[in-house]
Amino acid sequence: MGEFELIERFFLRPARRAALGGGDDCALLAVAPGMQLAISCDMLVEGRHFLSTVDPQWLGHKALAVNLSDLAACGAQPLAFSLALAMPRAEAAWLEPFARGLLALADAHDCELIGGDTTQGPLNICITVFGEVPAGGALLRSGARVGDDLYVSGTVGDARLALEVFRGGLSVPQEVFAQARARMEQPAPRVALGIALRGVASAAIDVSDGLLGDLRHILKQSGVGACIQTEVAVTLMATPLEVPGLELSTAQRLDYVLAGGDDYELLFTAPHEGRAAVQAAAAQSATAVTRIGSIESGSSVRLLDRQGQQMPNSYGSFDHFA
Amino acid sequence: MGEFELIERFFLRPARRAALGGGDDCALLAVAPGMQLAISCDMLVEGRHFLSTVDPQWLGHKALAVNLSDLAACGAQPLAFSLALAMPRAEAAWLEPFARGLLALADAHDCELIGGDTTQGPLNICITVFGEVPAGGALLRSGARVGDDLYVSGTVGDARLALEVFRGGLSVPQEVFAQARARMEQPAPRVALGIALRGVASAAIDVSDGLLGDLRHILKQSGVGACIQTEVAVTLMATPLEVPGLELSTAQRLDYVLAGGDDYELLFTAPHEGRAAVQAAAAQSATAVTRIGSIESGSSVRLLDRQGQQMPNSYGSFDHFA
Repeated sequence: MGEFELIERFFLRPARRAALGGGDDCALLAVAPGMQLAISCDMLVEGRHFLSTVDPQWLGHKALAVNLSDLAACGAQPLAFSLALAMPRAEAAWLEPFARGLLALADAHDCELIGGDTTQGPLNICITVFGEVPAGGALLRSGARVGDDLYVSGTVGDARLALEVFRGGLSVPQEVFAQARARMEQPAPRVALGIALRGVASAAIDVSDGLLGDLRHILKQSGVGACIQTEVAVTLMATPLEVPGLELSTAQRLDYVLAGGDDYELLFTAPHEGRAAVQAAAAQSATAVTRIGSIESGSSVRLLDRQGQQMPNSYGSFDHFA
Repeated sequence: MGEFELIERFFLRPARRAALGGGDDCALLAVAPGMQLAISCDMLVEGRHFLSTVDPQWLGHKALAVNLSDLAACGAQPLAFSLALAMPRAEAAWLEPFARGLLALADAHDCELIGGDTTQGPLNICITVFGEVPAGGALLRSGARVGDDLYVSGTVGDARLALEVFRGGLSVPQEVFAQARARMEQPAPRVALGIALRGVASAAIDVSDGLLGDLRHILKQSGVGACIQTEVAVTLMATPLEVPGLELSTAQRLDYVLAGGDDYELLFTAPHEGRAAVQAAAAQSATAVTRIGSIESGSSVRLLDRQGQQMPNSYGSFDHFA
């Protein structure tokens, strides 16, 4: 089966929202009056962003999920996406489940595939996603102010636990691994929460490289510092504290939460007086949020223990070329 | 130097047209009232789309050029682009000329880099480009009608000649190679022509996979056939017919023109009565166009010789997985 037939078979569907979908030189997209287009682009490479063992269905899911997570962090409503795909071989046995996982998540967010490119080469998945947000209403990294509360959505750190098990550095009970693996392979982008936080959050980012690493982007672009209550942070993992056969120290948990990565939760700030509005946004989007600290002056992150004493912070930020 | 520093050093510039450029979760782009966004995406892989010997400056140029060429084929005005880049190593000696070539072409078309992604991995360049076109005014592949003239812009086939020299299958005089190599490595996207052809051309596509292969997309989507005057087509190469030391048969020339690929010229159709308008568009955009045939009923391509007799047509279309 040739390239064009493969694309048509697994990916091409009639254009819905787009004025023109795949199959021409360009896709055409209309943007509603008063709205801006939010655009994000993520490239996934085997060994860096996913393991060769991953089910193609979940790889398709995750490739779009990490992009939708960027829209969520801006408070944008997903509209459409384009897919560029390099593969060593064009195989239906891989493409069918990949497309199935990808398009299932796309449908769940009413986000239309409007074009792309396929070529032969080392496996590489590049998705560019398009959303819309009221002009001037996007959540930015630069809006955090001294005194704001610092929140994170959902649970954090479990994807890293799964990665450590895959790497052979950790052994955990089967049911713990299954749950953590699902968190790593099937992240749920917090799109509804992002939209609900428009006008409520002062700054937001999605947690992809690790909570502290991504927090630093907010701090740098807002010109502020932050403190984090570690006794709250340590409770953020979905993996329960007490499981027979699970040996996970508090220090390990804190490490996974603060520097684990691959969480795709929203890390955001909001003014102290907006606590009720944050809770309303969480309820409206059926997404748990936890207040883990606050924004302060300066430029650094202070980790506070149960007594409010500062702990050593030696976490580096993730760097793809480190 | 870390990932973020590299990106900032070579790629980050203050946002101009975009409401928000690189450095946040999403870029924000406004689309003017009455305009649609035209979106295209191309992924370039070493060995498939470029040789390892290419100067990074020209690779940067070409990676954007092939995307701008898609906008040109829709008659869209370039606005912005995002860049995703996988590299084995982040080296300033490669990134500096790559960014220089890329941004020089971007500036020439007032097309702003508004975000992207970088990661470690086998070299892969994925650009998504955004342009705008009046709603309903985009040039499509589906508009060719029986009786329309068939045109191609500029010169065609020389990139293939250069590729054959690189592959060792052809030996040509140095000055011929230099010119052909420039055509292969530094394509000039026909953006101005595409815009001038709005309302003039009935269908258009850019020639990337070979003239006949790309023509077939127009024919399929328009439900028509075509004939091509081979005695005109054979004159489309920039490489002169008579150069001392150059042995290139008419059959070879025709092969390079019809099935060479990598040309990034516009192949388009226009009604017979629109010939003056086509010439005006060519003059306005300072781009040569040549009438090479016409659209007829059916679904196949007939190659006609000097006497109007049909020649055998055994050209296949390019397939990345063939």
